[in-house]
Amino acid sequence: MYEVWAPLATRVEVESGGIRRDMSLDNGWWRAPGDEHGVDYAFHVDGSGPFPDPRTRRQPYGLEGPSRVYEHARFTWGDQDWRGRHLRGSVIYELHVGTYTPEGTFEAVIDKLAHLVDLGVDFVELMPVAPVPGRRNWGYDGVDLYAVREDYGGPDGLKILVDACHQAGLGVILDVVYNHLGPCGNYLSKFGPYLHGYKGSYWGDAVNLDGPHSDEVRRYFIENALQWLRDYHIDGLRLDAVHALHDKRAVHFLEELAGEVEALSTVLGRPLTLIAESDLNDPGLITRYGLDATWNDDVHHALHSAVTGETHAYYGDFGSLAAVAKVMTSAYFHDGGYSTFRGRSHGRPATGVSGHRFVCCVQNHDQIGNRPLGDRMSPEQLWLAAGLLLTSPFTPMLFMGEEWGAGTPFYFFTDHYDPALAAGEGERRRREFESFGYDWKAPDPQDETTFLRSKLDWSEPTEDGAASLLGWYRDLIALRKSHPDLADPRLDRVHVRYDDDRHWLIIERGSMRIAANLGHFPVAVRVEPGHVLLASDEGTTLTGSDLYLPPLSLAIVHAKL
Amino acid sequence: MYEVWAPLATRVEVESGGIRRDMSLDNGWWRAPGDEHGVDYAFHVDGSGPFPDPRTRRQPYGLEGPSRVYEHARFTWGDQDWRGRHLRGSVIYELHVGTYTPEGTFEAVIDKLAHLVDLGVDFVELMPVAPVPGRRNWGYDGVDLYAVREDYGGPDGLKILVDACHQAGLGVILDVVYNHLGPCGNYLSKFGPYLHGYKGSYWGDAVNLDGPHSDEVRRYFIENALQWLRDYHIDGLRLDAVHALHDKRAVHFLEELAGEVEALSTVLGRPLTLIAESDLNDPGLITRYGLDATWNDDVHHALHSAVTGETHAYYGDFGSLAAVAKVMTSAYFHDGGYSTFRGRSHGRPATGVSGHRFVCCVQNHDQIGNRPLGDRMSPEQLWLAAGLLLTSPFTPMLFMGEEWGAGTPFYFFTDHYDPALAAGEGERRRREFESFGYDWKAPDPQDETTFLRSKLDWSEPTEDGAASLLGWYRDLIALRKSHPDLADPRLDRVHVRYDDDRHWLIIERGSMRIAANLGHFPVAVRVEPGHVLLASDEGTTLTGSDLYLPPLSLAIVHAKL
Repeated sequence: MYEVWAPLATRVEVESGGIRRDMSLDNGWWRAPGDEHGVDYAFHVDGSGPFPDPRTRRQPYGLEGPSRVYEHARFTWGDQDWRGRHLRGSVIYELHVGTYTPEGTFEAVIDKLAHLVDLGVDFVELMPVAPVPGRRNWGYDGVDLYAVREDYGGPDGLKILVDACHQAGLGVILDVVYNHLGPCGNYLSKFGPYLHGYKGSYWGDAVNLDGPHSDEVRRYFIENALQWLRDYHIDGLRLDAVHALHDKRAVHFLEELAGEVEALSTVLGRPLTLIAESDLNDPGLITRYGLDATWNDDVHHALHSAVTGETHAYYGDFGSLAAVAKVMTSAYFHDGGYSTFRGRSHGRPATGVSGHRFVCCVQNHDQIGNRPLGDRMSPEQLWLAAGLLLTSPFTPMLFMGEEWGAGTPFYFFTDHYDPALAAGEGERRRREFESFGYDWKAPDPQDETTFLRSKLDWSEPTEDGAASLLGWYRDLIALRKSHPDLADPRLDRVHVRYDDDRHWLIIERGSMRIAANLGHFPVAVRVEPGHVLLASDEGTTLTGSDLYLPPLSLAIVHAKL
Repeated sequence: MYEVWAPLATRVEVESGGIRRDMSLDNGWWRAPGDEHGVDYAFHVDGSGPFPDPRTRRQPYGLEGPSRVYEHARFTWGDQDWRGRHLRGSVIYELHVGTYTPEGTFEAVIDKLAHLVDLGVDFVELMPVAPVPGRRNWGYDGVDLYAVREDYGGPDGLKILVDACHQAGLGVILDVVYNHLGPCGNYLSKFGPYLHGYKGSYWGDAVNLDGPHSDEVRRYFIENALQWLRDYHIDGLRLDAVHALHDKRAVHFLEELAGEVEALSTVLGRPLTLIAESDLNDPGLITRYGLDATWNDDVHHALHSAVTGETHAYYGDFGSLAAVAKVMTSAYFHDGGYSTFRGRSHGRPATGVSGHRFVCCVQNHDQIGNRPLGDRMSPEQLWLAAGLLLTSPFTPMLFMGEEWGAGTPFYFFTDHYDPALAAGEGERRRREFESFGYDWKAPDPQDETTFLRSKLDWSEPTEDGAASLLGWYRDLIALRKSHPDLADPRLDRVHVRYDDDRHWLIIERGSMRIAANLGHFPVAVRVEPGHVLLASDEGTTLTGSDLYLPPLSLAIVHAKL
């Protein structure tokens, strides 16, 4: 049965095989018999069209072509033994399918799962996979939110990857974008009031979550979430930029979504995880709406600033070890105080929220790709930053290639076919960067080489054991898993001592002491007697309670208490 | 000391007595010596001006003239014995100063306080008193939010009225408008980013509560609230249309406001009450933000529809006794279900919220004045509606003149001096009414006679005892105060039986039975044996457990349990 919601239309037709047939109306939904797997079709609304199905599962000819019927039940799964994975205690690995491998496909990712298992991560997080304009895009310009990019491998390709992840013991988190739709190929408004009449963000019109007809608009997004979790066996969703959702209802969209996902989790018998990207520093996303976790940029900014010394733009209030101490014990740096970058007070305390509910990183697609030159932290910086992140009370997330200090950049890239967008993308980015206080000297997002240069170089990762950054990441993850004190998410059990002049800090986590010297001179600090479990520098020594730390080094001490 | 916040200005001058003097800058605030009581002054910002002070306390020459220094400490209060009044157990009386009396002044209201004391209400609620364009306005076009309309009597006039209320045993609630500013005479944007760049409502730009510099904008409104409560001895504020406040911060403006008011209450040693007008049916305004109460339109709509039979526009989901039963036990009719008028689901359950936290009415300025003909309920309808309202678990609010079934309408009226606004006001209203499904046949808001006809006619109220509507209101209020069961705010203790075909309902409140026959035929209903405390119709009889109710009558029975 073809089905489409078009509550204000007076006539809707389905076209398939060159034949247009009238659909019949029932309570806003139009229906017509048919929809055989593999058949191409499109809709005409009040005489205009053809338009793709708002819930199309396949767009074999791109954003502007017809949809293709795809039956989920035809796929044969091999992950019957998969019981799911909880966020607590896990490490996430974020990757962009198009640049993760030379091939840029789901299938090619499968070849790298052994690398990820070896690294020790628990979840793969895929940047958005919905169809986008052209052949190159981070994914946040997606439309046709129920479909999967054909160049990545389409619906079957994604299922095969998820199946393989599960059989390798890895969970899968999918990044989904519900706060806006891509700037072209979006035909939702031909069918119904999916969008508000006002500008939600610079990405375009806000989604209609609280106006007339918004019940069905909310269903559109909620059922999209359920599709991934149920029909694609996805284990969790990362919800893009929830601060750009406009919803004044007494029951917020995110609360409704969380309730529906919890119900599905009960039906499926495995944990399902919702993680919000949010700029609000509002623990209510967790405590009130019932989301499992949020991204936490403050932890990134504190660690990034402490390790790199950068204090421009939104790093302005960071750059001290006091800031690191604050986030390690409070999660939010801005928990009600003044944010210089925002020009106002920001956030509220996350009192009582478990640290594992904050997904934290020292690199992610934004923090690299939204730098004009897409440059990553240096390997020297990553040794220190990873040591702090992977021993923290938060849920750590790595960005592809970080684990070996990839030399490749991660640029912002697009492939708009709309001439105005193609010409304007660079300008839009320039304005955004200027608002962050950056000069704009980045490569052209539309240039294919900008994309190609962002692909990882798999000849880089070396296998020379503990002396390599890759070995350091493996060891840190292994230590985190074998010593529960290192993964303990209770923020009120974290104690930090630091010296902002000599650039050292010691984070106490149960019997573990994470001691870092971020300065260029050696330091000797006092810890309890014990033994060094892991050190980034061979010159680290512990004599009694005196820990000697070479410049730019980090050590993890197991104290005998 | 003259003081004004203008964080982006490069030069600010104060002009007084024909002399312009430069002010000096400290952290966004400009200051200059001076400000003697009674002196006129204005500001120049970066060469343009003169503009009135954003915090002007007097505008003796209107919105476009200079401000005048006014020292609060010069007023001598006589309400030293006033200990304040709690909302719980109280009855509110809303009035519009300009139409309450022939004179239309604070002073003239004082002459009516004996009437209000006699009626038995606890709080006077004044519609907004801030300066407005022209001589006639409901008050929601106010600007210069720290000032008081001169034609009402200015700051001293308001203080004299509050003082008199307190000495008469009445509390005072003031209606304040923080979600928008009036469409002319608003010079706030000359001084700083008080407004967001986007349209907040049809009233104009939204107030900047979460953008850059919004800390000081929030202070502007919060200190305004504190001024009324502290310097004018006001007992509570009614916050206009809080659903039109746009604030995504983790600490909402209303939560911050509630915290500040609670702190002031502790300092002053008397209760201070915050009541929100809200269209959100969101108990979080109370449970999360800490406001004391909200207006509740659902209760109005249910009672209005049940008594009048009207089911057009936003009355669409009401009109049944089932709806009355729902609101009497749940406060919200729309507590998550579908609202036809809104075309979407609406609200959430108010579980656990005490009924007295909902301010409810059968008439108010909006529910009368926003009818095209400004017509009130008929006296016959008010007998029934008042009987249901004044025995309800909510905080009842009356609208001026309702208590005697005033024959005068309450129209929407304005006196815009801006020609475009003067010409456009009728058209704006017409569009709004059409959106409610009304035909637009109302008198011209700009016509002075529209205002004059809205004034109460004090020759109307009759004093012929229990047979008069005025007597009925007095008796109901007295009964509510003498029988705690009638004011019990616990919604889970309310039980309602009803028959939608024969149009009767019985509301059980402890040992009290409120029995209403809303139909045009007599009915006999069963209650417990007891005695009739009050009946709107002399023909009411209680024989054993059989209560005979004449058509369109209401009786309150004290059951012997």
